[in-house]
Amino acid sequence: MKTITVNKNVLSKNDEIAARNKSSLSGRGIRMFNLLGSPGSGKTTLLESALAHESVDKSKIAVIEGDLFTDFDAKRMDEIGIRTIQLNTEGACHLEADMVERGIDELDLEGIETLIVDNIGNLVCTASFSLGEHYRIAVTSVTEGNDKPLKYPKLFKTADYVVINKIDLLPFTNFDVDRFTADVHSLNPNAKVFTCSAFKGEGMEAIADLFMNH
Amino acid sequence: MKTITVNKNVLSKNDEIAARNKSSLSGRGIRMFNLLGSPGSGKTTLLESALAHESVDKSKIAVIEGDLFTDFDAKRMDEIGIRTIQLNTEGACHLEADMVERGIDELDLEGIETLIVDNIGNLVCTASFSLGEHYRIAVTSVTEGNDKPLKYPKLFKTADYVVINKIDLLPFTNFDVDRFTADVHSLNPNAKVFTCSAFKGEGMEAIADLFMNH
Repeated sequence: MKTITVNKNVLSKNDEIAARNKSSLSGRGIRMFNLLGSPGSGKTTLLESALAHESVDKSKIAVIEGDLFTDFDAKRMDEIGIRTIQLNTEGACHLEADMVERGIDELDLEGIETLIVDNIGNLVCTASFSLGEHYRIAVTSVTEGNDKPLKYPKLFKTADYVVINKIDLLPFTNFDVDRFTADVHSLNPNAKVFTCSAFKGEGMEAIADLFMNH
Repeated sequence: MKTITVNKNVLSKNDEIAARNKSSLSGRGIRMFNLLGSPGSGKTTLLESALAHESVDKSKIAVIEGDLFTDFDAKRMDEIGIRTIQLNTEGACHLEADMVERGIDELDLEGIETLIVDNIGNLVCTASFSLGEHYRIAVTSVTEGNDKPLKYPKLFKTADYVVINKIDLLPFTNFDVDRFTADVHSLNPNAKVFTCSAFKGEGMEAIADLFMNH
């Protein structure tokens, strides 16, 4: 009887390509961020708002947009003058390292120091696939509720940074920033937690600084 | 050379079990609803709020809670006096028909007329797996933004009902109910769209009616 462990093969092939992406980008002095979160957590708005900050040199930043369908998000990056490429998975629920490798090949990375991947909106599947990022950012919003770290631990365990977005809506919800932060730290004591409102432009300096001075 | 189409086999086996679930429930006069949406769209709060409505006879309703980890949601159903069971997928990103079949076997369905499955928070993967439901409800919230139907079309194409939740937060967002509804109907002209705030208890009568009088 032969047993084929499909998932392990998929993941180890992915990890191989991810390592290649990371090493190739490192060699060119580029740091890659992988931005993950629920659909509607505000990942693309966070990029729009942070990259518009006066401290950001847009010529040094490129963005890979991941979506199942549409090029809405790449157009949003294009409109603010950020070099960008849209990856469409046509139904697949997460980006994998080989897709990002194709994006890297297609992008003009001359002069780029920061490459940001705006992953597909998904709290589960995206967290299992390294893209070769140097830093992983989990984006969540106060309207999603307090229970997310413990219900979706993999993302929060593997994130270097956790951004709590839509803080302007805090007074209208039952979200508890301290409890959420404590739950994140119970899973991942080293995760650095930011709060912000990308929509209102609040707390953007720290996020801009993260992208510019890593 | 042999080609194994894994995904097709998985889906057709799932469809077989889904058909068995549906026919077994139909034979007992039970209608099953499959509740899908992003993490934090408010699926469980919608159930808490709708099932607390005075028009609801709680003895006729049971809930299957799906989560990767934790039994937070089943406890919430238990607290409001709803017969419930928690399914934990331990990391898997969606429920499949065989998991729900096990839930049905474990639940006491005597006197039950409505069985609601509160699926895992995921706009992508959950939409591909029928559980044998008679009706599919997509739950979305105004804080998730307008672009979701076109970016995640599969769920909106296959939903019988679409619930736009957190309508109390509408004044603080750039969400456009008419545009969202038009996008849903461009994908799925027959979907019936509701607006509500489960958190504030607004618009709950129509949702309660949906669960009681299908």
